[in-house]
Amino acid sequence: MAWTVSTLAERLGLRFEGDGARAIRRVASLQSAGPDALTFVSRAAFIEALGRTGAGAVIVAPEHADRAPCAVLVSSNPYAAYARAAQLLHPEASAPGIDPGASVDGAARIGADVRIGARAVVQADARIGDGAVIGPGAFVGRGARVGAGSYLGPNVIIAHECELGARCRVQPGAVIGSDGFGYARDGNEWVRIPQIGRVVIGDDVDIGANTTIDRGALDDTVIEDGVKLDNLIQIAHNVRIGAHTAMAGCTGVAGSAVIGRRCTIGGAASILGHLEIVDDVHLSPLSFVTKSITLPGSYSSGMPIEPTTDWRRSVARLRQLDALARRVTHLEREKSDKRS
Amino acid sequence: MAWTVSTLAERLGLRFEGDGARAIRRVASLQSAGPDALTFVSRAAFIEALGRTGAGAVIVAPEHADRAPCAVLVSSNPYAAYARAAQLLHPEASAPGIDPGASVDGAARIGADVRIGARAVVQADARIGDGAVIGPGAFVGRGARVGAGSYLGPNVIIAHECELGARCRVQPGAVIGSDGFGYARDGNEWVRIPQIGRVVIGDDVDIGANTTIDRGALDDTVIEDGVKLDNLIQIAHNVRIGAHTAMAGCTGVAGSAVIGRRCTIGGAASILGHLEIVDDVHLSPLSFVTKSITLPGSYSSGMPIEPTTDWRRSVARLRQLDALARRVTHLEREKSDKRS
Amino acid sequence: MAWTVSTLAERLGLRFEGDGARAIRRVASLQSAGPDALTFVSRAAFIEALGRTGAGAVIVAPEHADRAPCAVLVSSNPYAAYARAAQLLHPEASAPGIDPGASVDGAARIGADVRIGARAVVQADARIGDGAVIGPGAFVGRGARVGAGSYLGPNVIIAHECELGARCRVQPGAVIGSDGFGYARDGNEWVRIPQIGRVVIGDDVDIGANTTIDRGALDDTVIEDGVKLDNLIQIAHNVRIGAHTAMAGCTGVAGSAVIGRRCTIGGAASILGHLEIVDDVHLSPLSFVTKSITLPGSYSSGMPIEPTTDWRRSVARLRQLDALARRVTHLEREKSDKRS
Repeated sequence: MAWTVSTLAERLGLRFEGDGARAIRRVASLQSAGPDALTFVSRAAFIEALGRTGAGAVIVAPEHADRAPCAVLVSSNPYAAYARAAQLLHPEASAPGIDPGASVDGAARIGADVRIGARAVVQADARIGDGAVIGPGAFVGRGARVGAGSYLGPNVIIAHECELGARCRVQPGAVIGSDGFGYARDGNEWVRIPQIGRVVIGDDVDIGANTTIDRGALDDTVIEDGVKLDNLIQIAHNVRIGAHTAMAGCTGVAGSAVIGRRCTIGGAASILGHLEIVDDVHLSPLSFVTKSITLPGSYSSGMPIEPTTDWRRSVARLRQLDALARRVTHLEREKSDKRS
Repeated sequence: MAWTVSTLAERLGLRFEGDGARAIRRVASLQSAGPDALTFVSRAAFIEALGRTGAGAVIVAPEHADRAPCAVLVSSNPYAAYARAAQLLHPEASAPGIDPGASVDGAARIGADVRIGARAVVQADARIGDGAVIGPGAFVGRGARVGAGSYLGPNVIIAHECELGARCRVQPGAVIGSDGFGYARDGNEWVRIPQIGRVVIGDDVDIGANTTIDRGALDDTVIEDGVKLDNLIQIAHNVRIGAHTAMAGCTGVAGSAVIGRRCTIGGAASILGHLEIVDDVHLSPLSFVTKSITLPGSYSSGMPIEPTTDWRRSVARLRQLDALARRVTHLEREKSDKRS
Repeated sequence: MAWTVSTLAERLGLRFEGDGARAIRRVASLQSAGPDALTFVSRAAFIEALGRTGAGAVIVAPEHADRAPCAVLVSSNPYAAYARAAQLLHPEASAPGIDPGASVDGAARIGADVRIGARAVVQADARIGDGAVIGPGAFVGRGARVGAGSYLGPNVIIAHECELGARCRVQPGAVIGSDGFGYARDGNEWVRIPQIGRVVIGDDVDIGANTTIDRGALDDTVIEDGVKLDNLIQIAHNVRIGAHTAMAGCTGVAGSAVIGRRCTIGGAASILGHLEIVDDVHLSPLSFVTKSITLPGSYSSGMPIEPTTDWRRSVARLRQLDALARRVTHLEREKSDKRS
């Protein structure tokens, strides 16, 4: 499917310059774009390369509009405008219909223009919103809800009674609504506590491949609107994640942690349970959060690699750090004793 | 389904006080419980709130029995008693039967009152014990065994010949019996070593969503009775985990590690291979275990976050730690030289 | 199926000594091997045990050939020879055929001797090479390719247009071709960037259970020949991993990282994005790579456990490290002031 430059501009709410009739069929990088491709420049460092692009059109900031050898779409945020253009140019193939090999309970409520793939299972009282896509092998449990326009990749699990808002995207293998890890100790044994809460997910939430989100013990686990979770993330029971927070892969969040809005959380971070992180906190990859964070800002932990022989020495020295500090105190005391 | 207070007390082996005929239908938190709900108080800190609860009944320790405004069930371990009560009040819906869309091999042995969900696959010579539940899309491979009363969530994999005991619960997407990561080096290439051991899992074991447990190379990977594993845990080939050990999410255990009984292992821990951890060891989250642990007790590692500017300074100072220690030694020597 | 010692020797290209007609049916450990089993000795430490083995045959280095009480196969690399022998003795059961419960699109191209399991889904224009095995519940998306002789375990996902070479093995639950984690910021919101690249995987690549590999944003994510990935690994979009690199479980690699050939990467490592690691780099478990590595060699990070009380002290001392360094500098200055 092709869009003309002028139609794209209109749809994206942008001003254009140059050949408005140029047909655009795809997005591409500045280097590889051909005459039917749209590209973008978001940083001044790429202005030189812009002059040499073979693209049919480019999205640029106003101050760079005259540097392009092709049609331009002008935006104060070229990267975001590019993202929206790419969504238009690369829509997902999605012919509605229920695959005859899917298993859809008669008591499920299926909206208009829904697509349900082969081998998918939709149980009783589940509700699938208009235009939603349930991928092959995906599972929507009893009483669960998938909002309008949401997409479940192959083999995604939405367990019973969990709710997913509108326009969410869930990547393959993600599990939403597994039992939380809750046990009472009784002597040497663990007694399982039934997890009767749900997972409640807002609109425009994305969830990565093989990520797991546990249902609440009594109350719900809550993921607010616009949250983006990468792959292989673990969200424990009764966690709450505030709107528009983004979390990179391999991160783990323990039970009942409350994370604020607009936070960014680097990969492989670990956030302990029963603590609170305020809005607008930015955590570097590998951040280890053991207490509440009460002030917005940037926080980090983790020790980058050294050559292995140096690392061995560092580890040994760390073991002696307390003794070293005492030796310095001792030197200081002796000096002040001498003076007095 | 409702239980009276007196029937609950009888079933749980507890003494009750107050209105034994009160009908209880659910569990709830101390704050939100209504007249048909059971709640509990396990810590003195909540005694004040107990006085204001709207619950129909509460489980309390003997010394707090007179503080409740409702019926009480008296237990020396209120939290464990609550866990058992919640299991009674919130049983899983489980009408036995094999979904017509399941694929069950004629040579599989299926016990009484088994439930097999849509799209599940049970291969030849698999044995499914009485009352077991095989979730939609789950897979039980050739010759594998699922013990009586065990539950496999949707899309769980039990690979060929692996064994799961009785009353186990396996959350969605967990993989039991994947090939271990075993290769012999030959020049620049890796030659795969067939993994012909099994995974053998005891009774009352719980396994979290998308957790993976590799089969043994020659001998078996063994998970003993009562072990609880959270989500996204990796257990490598030939690991042995002792009875009643609990392990939180995102933890990895490398090949041939042997972990004792009654250990608790915090989230995102890393345990290297070919080592041994004795019984009753407690590891904090992020613990990095590089050698055997020969004494019971509590162990930790990991560096909690700092503001990013402080962290940068810490990392730089750590790089200089060896030099710093030498400077202190130098100061000490000069001082003692001066004395002598 | 049995092999004689002489046939095994011929097939493996090895010299043998002793009873060439001995029938061998399995591999086993040095301790447990019986008269129909083959075992191996790769380290001098096991020579003593070799004398007591009950094995029917053993693979040994030339210098140990006279120490075995049974037939020997002589190899300069006994462990690699054992791996190849085990592949011969323990072939995978694989009767070709398409299960009637599989969903295979008429426009998919299926090679000779292919096996497709129950509930598997193969979409239009997918190509399955000769002798490939598609496990039960696995998914091969539109236009994707699975090379000759490759094996997909149960519930594996190969998303649309992704390519897998020949003789690859993908363990259950692995996801290849999920969307990369790509967003443009627009005020407080994240705008999704369609991920239109692919994942392109070479020959002889192994991928672990529940591991996830994201498709590229514009260009492809590339895994070269002979790479071995363990379980629960996250590979982000546009990563490139060089030939014959092996990576242990729970490791995460961020977007656009380029990793060289013949690297070994320990478990739970974290490699940040937009950096480059040269060939022949060896990273210990838990390595945290924040910058490019330009020299081959061995690198490490991570702080092993201490008893928890010691660890608390270490953490406190680390917080004071900058101040400690300043105190030492102060002591040094005072001393040199005194001298001058």
